[in-house]
Amino acid sequence: MTSPRSPLARPFPLLPQIAGVTPHVARAGYKAWERTDLTFITLDPGTSVAGVLTQSKCPSPEVEWCRAALVLGQARAIVVNAGNANAFTGARGRAAVEVIAARAAGQLGCQPSDIFVASTGVIGVPLPIDKAEAGLDAAFSAAPCSWEEATNTIGTTDTFAKAAMTTAVVDGRTVTLVGIIKGSGMIAPDMATMLGFIFTDAAVEPAFLQAALSEANRASFSCITVDSDTSTSDSVLAFATGKAGNTPLSDAEDAGADAFRAALSDLCLQLAHLVVRDGEGATKFIEIAVTGAESDASARTIALSIANSPLVKTAIAGEDANWGRVVMAVGKAGEPAERDSLAIRFGDTQVAQGGLAVVGYDEAPVAAHLKGQDIEIGVDIGLGEGSATVWTCDLTHGYISINADYRS
Amino acid sequence: MTSPRSPLARPFPLLPQIAGVTPHVARAGYKAWERTDLTFITLDPGTSVAGVLTQSKCPSPEVEWCRAALVLGQARAIVVNAGNANAFTGARGRAAVEVIAARAAGQLGCQPSDIFVASTGVIGVPLPIDKAEAGLDAAFSAAPCSWEEATNTIGTTDTFAKAAMTTAVVDGRTVTLVGIIKGSGMIAPDMATMLGFIFTDAAVEPAFLQAALSEANRASFSCITVDSDTSTSDSVLAFATGKAGNTPLSDAEDAGADAFRAALSDLCLQLAHLVVRDGEGATKFIEIAVTGAESDASARTIALSIANSPLVKTAIAGEDANWGRVVMAVGKAGEPAERDSLAIRFGDTQVAQGGLAVVGYDEAPVAAHLKGQDIEIGVDIGLGEGSATVWTCDLTHGYISINADYRS
Repeated sequence: MTSPRSPLARPFPLLPQIAGVTPHVARAGYKAWERTDLTFITLDPGTSVAGVLTQSKCPSPEVEWCRAALVLGQARAIVVNAGNANAFTGARGRAAVEVIAARAAGQLGCQPSDIFVASTGVIGVPLPIDKAEAGLDAAFSAAPCSWEEATNTIGTTDTFAKAAMTTAVVDGRTVTLVGIIKGSGMIAPDMATMLGFIFTDAAVEPAFLQAALSEANRASFSCITVDSDTSTSDSVLAFATGKAGNTPLSDAEDAGADAFRAALSDLCLQLAHLVVRDGEGATKFIEIAVTGAESDASARTIALSIANSPLVKTAIAGEDANWGRVVMAVGKAGEPAERDSLAIRFGDTQVAQGGLAVVGYDEAPVAAHLKGQDIEIGVDIGLGEGSATVWTCDLTHGYISINADYRS
Repeated sequence: MTSPRSPLARPFPLLPQIAGVTPHVARAGYKAWERTDLTFITLDPGTSVAGVLTQSKCPSPEVEWCRAALVLGQARAIVVNAGNANAFTGARGRAAVEVIAARAAGQLGCQPSDIFVASTGVIGVPLPIDKAEAGLDAAFSAAPCSWEEATNTIGTTDTFAKAAMTTAVVDGRTVTLVGIIKGSGMIAPDMATMLGFIFTDAAVEPAFLQAALSEANRASFSCITVDSDTSTSDSVLAFATGKAGNTPLSDAEDAGADAFRAALSDLCLQLAHLVVRDGEGATKFIEIAVTGAESDASARTIALSIANSPLVKTAIAGEDANWGRVVMAVGKAGEPAERDSLAIRFGDTQVAQGGLAVVGYDEAPVAAHLKGQDIEIGVDIGLGEGSATVWTCDLTHGYISINADYRS
């Protein structure tokens, strides 16, 4: 964490403990960092798990391991290595994951398939197995740590520790959800992005937890982008320990199921927004709402075309009311759009309607809006009922500085 | 042209006159530039025309005008306005194009549909009709200018004048082709990109000229990207005056047809490469060759995923041999790929094969290659016979500087 703290950073929230969840950290020494880099969060027996993983065709062995383990739906720990993604490392990388799972399972007295593993950092360098083993032993024997320590330990180029919480009433009992997340660059929506871990004391059957997480993901992690680049290692895992003592949720019709799904969606959206707020080099948090498209999917494609446009992102970085670049990004999206019915709004100010600038267009309120940190762009396509909202950040010199010498 | 000259710039070539083509320039005063900004190239009667135009759903009225006029296949002039794209300007923008075509047609004694029009610059501001008319009159009465003056006059954020020439022997006669082009940002391949104008003294029927231009475009302009952003105004038009006196080419079987097609393809590739060399902020010219994909289309999608990745482009800007970012970009492309059969080459050095770094990988030759100006990345997917080559530039602080305050 050598970059300056994002100007969009949020303070670390007060987070409660989650019964059945015990975080530990240690220093494995994957990089020459003077900080902890291995997180080992143990989970009591009976914990359900669900996950959404990168759709990359070149996934890390960690992603493949989690995909296989998710089928069983049970978890006893999550191990996170920071500083080395262990992706594209062939048989050695796969062996590293197997060794980590076996060693943690031995410590906890469970099956290796109960251990979830995630790694983040440079691609193409095998994770050193001896460091991982020594780090795991150190973490296992260390005292439990705070959420903030665990969150800092999973970070790489992150400039602030990102976490959120929420509650829901299920079956007459208040259940609590806590999420921690890392990610700042190589952030683009393809099911899941970055590494995120969600813990709840609610009792939830794995299949229902998976359905709720997938639904929450669609409107949160799948609707953010920092740089259009999708990681090989993206993983969001949700763990439910059941310690709240509610009747386990297994169906959308169960009492409290709606409250739990809403709480999980809220938590995922909070976490997704925090990732955008730590977008590499970000100085503006940008919400792009597209309405009037032929379908929701079409609206999302158009919204992401705007959110990923370097010219839109640099215009906002420069606080330049250059709304013509939004027109360009709508035009290139490849989705149905009708130039002469297009309308564009910046903040509360309508700038264009019916295919041209509004009559008497006054740039002053738009310029004032662009000077703020939270930017809203609204685009109405004028064709149908489809809508989508996505979030991104601006593209600045900071992004170039961070990424032209990240590895070196 | 206020940005520093691109370090990848090429000197302006020696270009012959093309019989039947007469360039003029004038200062319409669209911006407060101390330079000419209106180009008026007249063409003798009997000139054929073909074109490829942006696929944007929000095209400029100039693009719509050209699309309609191309159906007739005949041209007497091309008028280019620089400093104002006239896109997304509603009825006023359409009226401006009609006035320009009518006035030029009046000067030349032809039909308005014989006049082609292109405009480039800021989007959303109607082109001032009075300035266009006065500029057109001034250009018409001005002495003919050089190719270099015309090329400078069509430019906006371009840092050097870009043009190329080639010849072919058709029907026993040497025909000459000259092309001029502008473009530096908002460059991404979607049929045509930027504004390019090609002139030849060959006699070519419009339908065959169109077929040859479309074919040449697929492997040239459609294979370059600077920033993944596709303009509302992209147009490449080819004009054939017939003054060389060859039997008009009308069919791929005609004598000399192959030579003409090859020459046109060569010219388009030269021009496309020049645009990449003037990519906003560019310091490296990057060729990305993908082989072994399931199809040529799949190879092109993968190659463009690499070429448009901000993380790949910043790594090259930083001369960082971070080939894991190429793996990432292959993985996110959404095309068939098999991680464990992937091979990656930088310059002549194989860096990865079979899903991991090569045995004994030595970064030194890769680092040396990255210090050069011309970078080659080769990716073999290992699945089939599909291949594609695309060209791009790196992403630097220069791009941010140019685009965070382009309009202001």
